[in-house]
Amino acid sequence: MPTLNDAVTPVTGFSVAGVHAGLKNADALDFALIASDRLCVTAGVFTTNQVKAAPVLLDIDQLAKNAQGIRAVAVNTRSANACTGDLGLANAQATTEYVAEKLGCAAADVLVLSTGVIGSQLPMAKIRQGVDLSVDALGQDWLSAAAAIMTTDTRPKYASITVQTDEGEYHIAGISKGAGMIAPNMATMLAVIVTDAGLDNPQAILQTVVQTSFNRIVVDGDTSTNDSVLLLANGASGIHLKTPEALTQFEAALETLCIRLAQDIVRDGEGVTKFITLNITGAPDAKTAHQIANTIAASPLVKTAFFGNDANWGRIIAAAGRSGLVLDQHRLNLWFAAGETLENSLQLVENGLPLDYSEADAMAIVSEASVSIRLDCGLGTGEAVVWTCDLSHDYVTINGDYRT
Amino acid sequence: MPTLNDAVTPVTGFSVAGVHAGLKNADALDFALIASDRLCVTAGVFTTNQVKAAPVLLDIDQLAKNAQGIRAVAVNTRSANACTGDLGLANAQATTEYVAEKLGCAAADVLVLSTGVIGSQLPMAKIRQGVDLSVDALGQDWLSAAAAIMTTDTRPKYASITVQTDEGEYHIAGISKGAGMIAPNMATMLAVIVTDAGLDNPQAILQTVVQTSFNRIVVDGDTSTNDSVLLLANGASGIHLKTPEALTQFEAALETLCIRLAQDIVRDGEGVTKFITLNITGAPDAKTAHQIANTIAASPLVKTAFFGNDANWGRIIAAAGRSGLVLDQHRLNLWFAAGETLENSLQLVENGLPLDYSEADAMAIVSEASVSIRLDCGLGTGEAVVWTCDLSHDYVTINGDYRT
Repeated sequence: MPTLNDAVTPVTGFSVAGVHAGLKNADALDFALIASDRLCVTAGVFTTNQVKAAPVLLDIDQLAKNAQGIRAVAVNTRSANACTGDLGLANAQATTEYVAEKLGCAAADVLVLSTGVIGSQLPMAKIRQGVDLSVDALGQDWLSAAAAIMTTDTRPKYASITVQTDEGEYHIAGISKGAGMIAPNMATMLAVIVTDAGLDNPQAILQTVVQTSFNRIVVDGDTSTNDSVLLLANGASGIHLKTPEALTQFEAALETLCIRLAQDIVRDGEGVTKFITLNITGAPDAKTAHQIANTIAASPLVKTAFFGNDANWGRIIAAAGRSGLVLDQHRLNLWFAAGETLENSLQLVENGLPLDYSEADAMAIVSEASVSIRLDCGLGTGEAVVWTCDLSHDYVTINGDYRT
Repeated sequence: MPTLNDAVTPVTGFSVAGVHAGLKNADALDFALIASDRLCVTAGVFTTNQVKAAPVLLDIDQLAKNAQGIRAVAVNTRSANACTGDLGLANAQATTEYVAEKLGCAAADVLVLSTGVIGSQLPMAKIRQGVDLSVDALGQDWLSAAAAIMTTDTRPKYASITVQTDEGEYHIAGISKGAGMIAPNMATMLAVIVTDAGLDNPQAILQTVVQTSFNRIVVDGDTSTNDSVLLLANGASGIHLKTPEALTQFEAALETLCIRLAQDIVRDGEGVTKFITLNITGAPDAKTAHQIANTIAASPLVKTAFFGNDANWGRIIAAAGRSGLVLDQHRLNLWFAAGETLENSLQLVENGLPLDYSEADAMAIVSEASVSIRLDCGLGTGEAVVWTCDLSHDYVTINGDYRT
């Protein structure tokens, strides 16, 4: 199993840039471009929100017509280009045309992503400036590209992985953003992943991997109008993945990468002080387990208890109980552990009743920066893992102040 | 249409008490008793949470066997008596027996309600002390009774209404509590309502009224293990309600009372600075409208925007979009108004696009202590009203500190 690279590594044929287009104040990076020197086979997973931003609508259309021929992805911050009507769509289209002109490709080869406030139109002069500057700056500065797509994120999110095969090695790299409005049941947030492996049609693989990575994170339970995950494969490594074994190996590497990018979003969630790994076991099936996990992860009472370092297991049980599923409260078992695994876990609840555990021990666990929880439902073999965080004063401050 | 009384009014045959049993620290009232001098026909609506507290399980059983013969309701704070197993059930049962002994009735005639922390057993010596003291104190001090069932509530919630009929007048009075863990799809929180009208079987009426009152409030989207609404009718006014007209009149009066008690819970919600009336119109049907309203009401991003006095309509549209229903974003219309009605409303969004409204006007509206919103979906005639609140720093503080 390949492991994530420690440093930024090039992905053959791809170049990136993150620049200051004047969308944000001061000198903050606010516009990113990801480009390939040849056509990419491209997959996309988009928000399930019924209110879809213009770039989401445009990309879905572009991929339906030209998934085999994508050359670039342009990403702007400050404006989500959502609830912007025909003008918003026209602006998204104009952005692809301007990028295409600068890169010498067709507008149909360009995708766009937007993140920021809902309801404001793209400032096209600044967008064009962003395109000009980023085309000139194209190179291997992935961290700048990752920084240039941030909104309330406090740090750039980048990961890469190198996969060894009998024919040589190929690479996968990705950037992601998203700090609030993060919930499951959709593609969540923005992520652009590129690989120099050759793939015929990575759509199914991306959808599968999104299910076990970006769809397993919850910051606040809200779902954005702009959530998008893109995967561009340009084949520049000369390694074309065709056999089931090769595709399985790719999927595993992609999953490792996406889990890291997804977890980094939670770790850098708005106001987050605690990273929580929720393991649901013993549910009737995996879907049920996921639903229970999501309900617990989105519960303000559970989240504030963690912020307060309170091992308030009752709120976890109560959240599970209201998840809309049939549970037997007398079969519930609950464990807490420090860290990201269940090693050295402390059992707090057995068959629905609290054990005579040490409150000091429990508080020591939940006072850690990383806490793992296992809730066993005692009903079946369904399992799910969800990564989430606490709800702090800073979340309220950030979201009470975001626009103004 | 009868209106709520301004002052505490007796309901013939009922007496109440709120006492300090030593469950809470200092001299805080922490135990309440509501008693009738004769048998009451009783209805109950209980939590839909799959994890049900012992008093909920016991009351459901008592009402199944003896809905025509209830004499008293005892309410304790500090312990929810949830996740307490056989001992919890035995303690709830023992409480009914002790109350029955003191009042000279059967244990089957007594209901119990508990609120507080999940997982702790009832301290039975203190519970018996609460029974002793409250039986001695039985009288007309409704505000003490209302205060004695509070948890993180900051003020007692009481309302009464007098209904004039051709045969004379009867009365309805009620108390409620609940400041966090408040969401719809269940009976929500604790409320005890009594009337001296005579009713044959008020269960259906209570269920109907709960749908348009307690099930229309959202504080944080969490659903308690203990939510219960009880209605006791002792017939002591001598007015027995039998005709459809009389029952309709009663239902209308009960609804007025329950809406007040429910709204008071939101107004006194944990950390609440703003009371928000959400009107959803133009949905395919009423159920859909209610679901959209609940999704908006539970959205942390919507709630924190209101806390920040930010007229962030995009978050409302985005929350509607993720409510799991099919919407047409190009048909959405949105208005804001100061106060509890839509009078003098400002339209912010038309057919999914922001209008050229004054941001200062919008901010002036959302800076009010009470704000009304109307979202029209443009799809049908389904409507729903939900009352909710903002999410403030104090909510985080209260729930980060509640147990410890």
